[in-house]
Amino acid sequence: MLHELDILAKLLPALPQSPEVAVGPGDDCAALDMGGGILLLAAVDQTVSGVHYTPDTRPERAGAKLLKRNASDIAAMGGVARWVLLATASGGGDGQWVLDFCRGAARAAEELGISLIGGDITALPAAGEVGALTILGTVPKDEILRRTGAKEGDFLCVTGSCGNSFASGHHLDFTPRLAEGRFLASHRLASSAIDISDGVLLDLGRVAAASGTGFRIDTDLIPLRNGAALKQALTDGEDYELLFTTPPDRMDELKKTWRFETPFTVIGRAVSGAGIVDQNGKPLNGGGYEH
Amino acid sequence: MLHELDILAKLLPALPQSPEVAVGPGDDCAALDMGGGILLLAAVDQTVSGVHYTPDTRPERAGAKLLKRNASDIAAMGGVARWVLLATASGGGDGQWVLDFCRGAARAAEELGISLIGGDITALPAAGEVGALTILGTVPKDEILRRTGAKEGDFLCVTGSCGNSFASGHHLDFTPRLAEGRFLASHRLASSAIDISDGVLLDLGRVAAASGTGFRIDTDLIPLRNGAALKQALTDGEDYELLFTTPPDRMDELKKTWRFETPFTVIGRAVSGAGIVDQNGKPLNGGGYEH
Repeated sequence: MLHELDILAKLLPALPQSPEVAVGPGDDCAALDMGGGILLLAAVDQTVSGVHYTPDTRPERAGAKLLKRNASDIAAMGGVARWVLLATASGGGDGQWVLDFCRGAARAAEELGISLIGGDITALPAAGEVGALTILGTVPKDEILRRTGAKEGDFLCVTGSCGNSFASGHHLDFTPRLAEGRFLASHRLASSAIDISDGVLLDLGRVAAASGTGFRIDTDLIPLRNGAALKQALTDGEDYELLFTTPPDRMDELKKTWRFETPFTVIGRAVSGAGIVDQNGKPLNGGGYEH
Repeated sequence: MLHELDILAKLLPALPQSPEVAVGPGDDCAALDMGGGILLLAAVDQTVSGVHYTPDTRPERAGAKLLKRNASDIAAMGGVARWVLLATASGGGDGQWVLDFCRGAARAAEELGISLIGGDITALPAAGEVGALTILGTVPKDEILRRTGAKEGDFLCVTGSCGNSFASGHHLDFTPRLAEGRFLASHRLASSAIDISDGVLLDLGRVAAASGTGFRIDTDLIPLRNGAALKQALTDGEDYELLFTTPPDRMDELKKTWRFETPFTVIGRAVSGAGIVDQNGKPLNGGGYEH
């Protein structure tokens, strides 16, 4: 069985990119230089019934989740989420499910100031529901947050808390950290960022690989959601929190100016090397949940 | 069973649009005013195994089809196709199908000068394959082709030929009419355009509704693909040809300057009223193939 990452590894090197592509595949969003100092951010994500939500989930909530997890990718780039296109494929239902799914996505979009500008609705030969949503956003070129910017010595921070997202319902109820991401970007308080979709370890591993640094996490500092065990907090995924790094000389400013109800927590630092270790130097390899 | 159009009719009026949205849902693409006299075009479309291609279709060809039918939407707006994001959901396979599907889409993109900038690959609990592709393009603001611009007296033209697309393999082998659409737009030779995905009658009906005109088609003039019957040419769909209107005072210029291997054919005119009639004034109601 070819894994998503294997497929991408085979596919990506062959992809030629036009000169406007400032960020190609491999970050939370691609970024296109549209001139005028503004980058257009673009990302696509999917939800599948029985994979990303249980089949008894109300369609409005499932649609809202799809919208919000895409918005979380814009947040991770420090951008403003602006426009979305929604595609649904479903079979075995009466059409009401699709309507309610789309309504849920549209309502969540409206709440976040995002316009639903296009869509496609098609039928599946078998029972099932797939939603695919493309989100577009904007970010000033000199403010974009990438996975690549972490430097040895930077503090590692996380918004909110981690773990136990699925059972607690957080994976449906979360608020994408758009305001926080934009704040970090516009005040230059983060050197890198990613949103936690597949678990702290797996997503931090992506930052480590992109930035060429290692990380030391003090596992005692990780904020646990609703009684999550540490292992859950490290590997569950679907947190949709921002994991970001802040240079030491920006840390005071970050602490002084953070103005959101959702706190951030320092949980470690970028260190030399390539892996992720705990406070005792022991490698943390917990896998994660790839969707 | 709620039909796609019923779902959209319920959903669309409630969608608030940001001021940058120059064209919202309801044309071949949405258009966003990015400043600098350029509109960003965006559209999403899907392919489902067993619906848009037979299950024995090679995945490369299925992927290429998805790419090209999206490009056809950019062509219908007179734009340049630039960037795509591809999402796949599949179950029951070994991953090789997905890789080959993505490769087919990526190769078709490269041939058309389009960059694949992002994607998502996910699993379906049941057997099946769904591809969803979002395409982005650009068009000068004062050149965009819409469904809304047809005026009484305009000539109705079609590129290539119509009907019998599925059986003949055209639905997989077609070339999106990007060059032709761009030519029509940049030389202001068309007052409206749409691509034929659901059949001449159904797609022309959309132009008629958007422009507030009727159409008279001379059915003897419709170019038939590979022995297609007239009814097939009017209703089969999947032609991915451009159906466009040209003002009478631009017709000579169009004929004189058309420089493409694929011919265009005048098949009728925009007339007063709201319906579509044949050369004898008889209403043409043949339905179409909605995907």
